[in-house]
Amino acid sequence: MKPIRKIKGGVASAKGFRVSGVEAGIKYAGRKDVALLVADEPCVLAAVFTTNKVAAAPVVYDRKIAKGGGMVRAILANSGCANACTGEAGFKDAELSALAAAGELGLKAEEVLVASTGVIGRRLPMQKLLDGARKAKAALGRTAAHMADAERAIMTTDTKPKSACATVEIGGVKVTVGGMAKGSGMIEPNMATMLGFITTDAAISKAMLRKALLRSLEKSFNKVVVDGDESTNDSLFLLASGAAGNAAIKAPGEDFDAFCAALDAVAVSLARQMAMDGEGATKFVTVTVKGARSQKDADKAARAIARSPLAKTSWFGKDPNWGRVLAAAGYSGADVVDVRSEVFYDGVWAFRFGEVAGEKQLAKLGKVLAKDEFAVTVDLHLGDASSTIYTCDLSLDYVHINADYTT
Amino acid sequence: MKPIRKIKGGVASAKGFRVSGVEAGIKYAGRKDVALLVADEPCVLAAVFTTNKVAAAPVVYDRKIAKGGGMVRAILANSGCANACTGEAGFKDAELSALAAAGELGLKAEEVLVASTGVIGRRLPMQKLLDGARKAKAALGRTAAHMADAERAIMTTDTKPKSACATVEIGGVKVTVGGMAKGSGMIEPNMATMLGFITTDAAISKAMLRKALLRSLEKSFNKVVVDGDESTNDSLFLLASGAAGNAAIKAPGEDFDAFCAALDAVAVSLARQMAMDGEGATKFVTVTVKGARSQKDADKAARAIARSPLAKTSWFGKDPNWGRVLAAAGYSGADVVDVRSEVFYDGVWAFRFGEVAGEKQLAKLGKVLAKDEFAVTVDLHLGDASSTIYTCDLSLDYVHINADYTT
Repeated sequence: MKPIRKIKGGVASAKGFRVSGVEAGIKYAGRKDVALLVADEPCVLAAVFTTNKVAAAPVVYDRKIAKGGGMVRAILANSGCANACTGEAGFKDAELSALAAAGELGLKAEEVLVASTGVIGRRLPMQKLLDGARKAKAALGRTAAHMADAERAIMTTDTKPKSACATVEIGGVKVTVGGMAKGSGMIEPNMATMLGFITTDAAISKAMLRKALLRSLEKSFNKVVVDGDESTNDSLFLLASGAAGNAAIKAPGEDFDAFCAALDAVAVSLARQMAMDGEGATKFVTVTVKGARSQKDADKAARAIARSPLAKTSWFGKDPNWGRVLAAAGYSGADVVDVRSEVFYDGVWAFRFGEVAGEKQLAKLGKVLAKDEFAVTVDLHLGDASSTIYTCDLSLDYVHINADYTT
Repeated sequence: MKPIRKIKGGVASAKGFRVSGVEAGIKYAGRKDVALLVADEPCVLAAVFTTNKVAAAPVVYDRKIAKGGGMVRAILANSGCANACTGEAGFKDAELSALAAAGELGLKAEEVLVASTGVIGRRLPMQKLLDGARKAKAALGRTAAHMADAERAIMTTDTKPKSACATVEIGGVKVTVGGMAKGSGMIEPNMATMLGFITTDAAISKAMLRKALLRSLEKSFNKVVVDGDESTNDSLFLLASGAAGNAAIKAPGEDFDAFCAALDAVAVSLARQMAMDGEGATKFVTVTVKGARSQKDADKAARAIARSPLAKTSWFGKDPNWGRVLAAAGYSGADVVDVRSEVFYDGVWAFRFGEVAGEKQLAKLGKVLAKDEFAVTVDLHLGDASSTIYTCDLSLDYVHINADYTT
C-alpha cells in the first residue's frame, strides 16, 4: 500500500466539489454564518448523527434523506441558530431551507442536506437563511479562500477554523480526502456539538463508504472529550464524488485500506483540532489508559479521566495532580488497584506502585505541566487493553464563555 | 407517629457523645485539622463508604472494623491529608493511628475508626496526628463550642461548617439524632468526597440501624451532585448509643419509622448544606425530572442535568438556558420527546411543548435566575416517575479553587 500524504487543503480539495461561506446576518454583524457545499455530480453519502434523544430539526430531516439511500449533491449549513427544540415548525423550516436551496441550485429536494449549529430553541430566521443560500451559491469556488470562508461560516465558539486533507494512490490513481469541521464545547461521547464535512473523489460503494466512516469515527471524533455534554445537532457527512476515476472500491482489500488510511488521517486531524480548540482550552491533553483488564475498562477509565472536572482544572492549574487522575479511573467502573498502577505525564512518572513523586520528580513534572500539550498515561498493569482520548483542560474561560453565551 | 422537631445541635447532641476539634499542624497554621468523637459506652455502628476502586487507607481500615461487626467507641478524623494512594505504608499509618487513639482513650483497637480528607498521595504526618489525638482527647466535650470546633476540623475547601439535629418521641422517650459533615467538591454519585458523622441515643439493633442508614442515604447524600467526581475517602458513620432509654427498635414499625424520619431530617439537611457549599457555588439548584417513563429514566435525566457543565455554567451566568437542560436530559439515556416536554425555573415556564419563552416570559425567568436558590423542573410527560437532585452552579471560583488546590 502506498503511504498517504497529508497536504494543505480542505473540503473542496477533492475533485468535483465547490464551497462557499457568506455573511447572512444570522450571527452578529461581520461574521460569516452560511456555508454551502456543492458537488458537480451526484455523490455517494455516508453520514452519522447525534445519539441525543433531543435531536435538532436538521438532524431529523437529514436522517430521512440518508435513509432514502439516494445520491446527494449539496449541503446547506448555518451557524448562529441550531434549529433545535423547535418542534414541528422547526422541522418545516429545515425542510423548506433544503427545498429552497435545491430550487436555487436546480437540484432535486432529496439531493440536499442541511446542518445547523448555534443557539437552541430559536426558530431559523428563514428570510436571512434563504438570502444567504442565494449569496452562497454565487460565491462557490474551490480555492483556499473559498474553503476558509466556509470553515469560518460554520464556527460558533470555535476560535480557529478547522480543516485537513490527505491524498493516497489507489490503483495508480491519486485519490483525495479533505474536510472541515467545527467543534468546541459539548464535545463528548459520539461527536457531540460538532459538524463535520468530509469529501472525497474516490469511487466507492455506499456500503464500503459507510464502513469506512464508522471505522474512522471510532478513532477520531468519538475519541474527543471536551466537557462531556452531547449536543442536539452533531452531524458528520462524508460525500464521495468518484471523480478521481479509480476502479470503484466495492469490497475490503488493499484499495479499501488505502482509502481508510487517508480518511483516518483527515478525521483524526479534525478531531485533534477540535480538542485543541475546546472552549477556553489552554492545553491539549492526550489521555491514555493502558494495562487495563479489558477494552471496555480502558475506555471507561480514559473517558472518566478526560471528563473529570477535577483532573481538568488541575491541568489548567499546571498541577501534576495524579491523585485526581487515579481517583477518576477508580470511579469509572474499571478495575483499578492503586498500588499496582503508575501515572505518567509525558513519560515522567508521578505515581508508581504506591510511590509518590518527591521534590526532584515534581520539578520534572512541573516542566511537563507548563507545556501547551502533553500526554497523561495511566498504566493499570492488570491486562493488555488500552485506550486513548483527546481532551483539553477546564479553564476560567470555559466558564466565562458558557456563562455568557446566551439562550 | 409524633412529629419530628428540628433543633439546633450536632454530632454531640444525642446523649452519650463527646467531641472535639483541635489544631495539629497538618493543614496550614491557624486551622483546626483533627477531630475526635468519643462515645461514653459502646455503640452500634452502621457505615457506608466510597464505591471508588481507589479507596483510601482509612476506608480500607474502617471496612475491616465494620465487617468485624462489634461495637465501637470512637472516631479519629483529620483533614489536610487524605491518606489515599499511599499503598501498604498508608494502611499501616491508618492502623497505627487507630491503635494509638485506642491506647490514648483506654479502648480496644477494634472500637476505634479513622477518617481522613485532604490531599491525595501524601503520607499522614504521624507525629502531628498522634499529638493531635492527645490534644483532642483533652478537649472533649458536648457544648455547641465543642461541636463547632469539630465541624471546622473536618473542613477542607468547605466554606461553612455543617451540622444538623432533630428529635422525635419514641414510646414516650425523647430520642435525638445529630450530625456533622464536610463536603464541597467531588460530590456525586454515592456521596463522593464527603465525611459524615451522625450520632443518636436511640436504642436500635444493628440490622435496623443499617437499614435506616441506607434508606436515608438514598434521599440525602446520594441525591447531591457537585461536579460528578467521586472521591477515594467518602465515609458516612452512624453511631447509636442507646442512652435515650427507649425500648430497642428491633423490627420495622412505628418506632422505626419515627427514628427514620429524624435521621432523614438530619441527613437531608446535611446533604443540602453540602450542595449549597459546593466548591465555588453561587447558587443552590434543586433539579427535578418528573413525568419520566421509569424511575431509572427520571434519575438518569436529573443526574445528567445536575452534572452538565453547560447547564451549570448557564446558571452561574443567570441564563435560563432550558436548551442545555433539555439537551442533557436527551443524552442521559432517558426517553425524552422534546415537543412533549416542559422546562420550568421555579414554576415559571421557559419551554413548553415546542413553544419557547418570549420577551415577557424571559423577563420573569430573569428574576428567578437572579436568585441564590431556585428549582429547575423538567416535565417529560411520558409517565409517572420523578427524581430530585440537589446541586449547584459551576462558577469561575470552582476553577480557581481546583486549579490552585495543590497535590
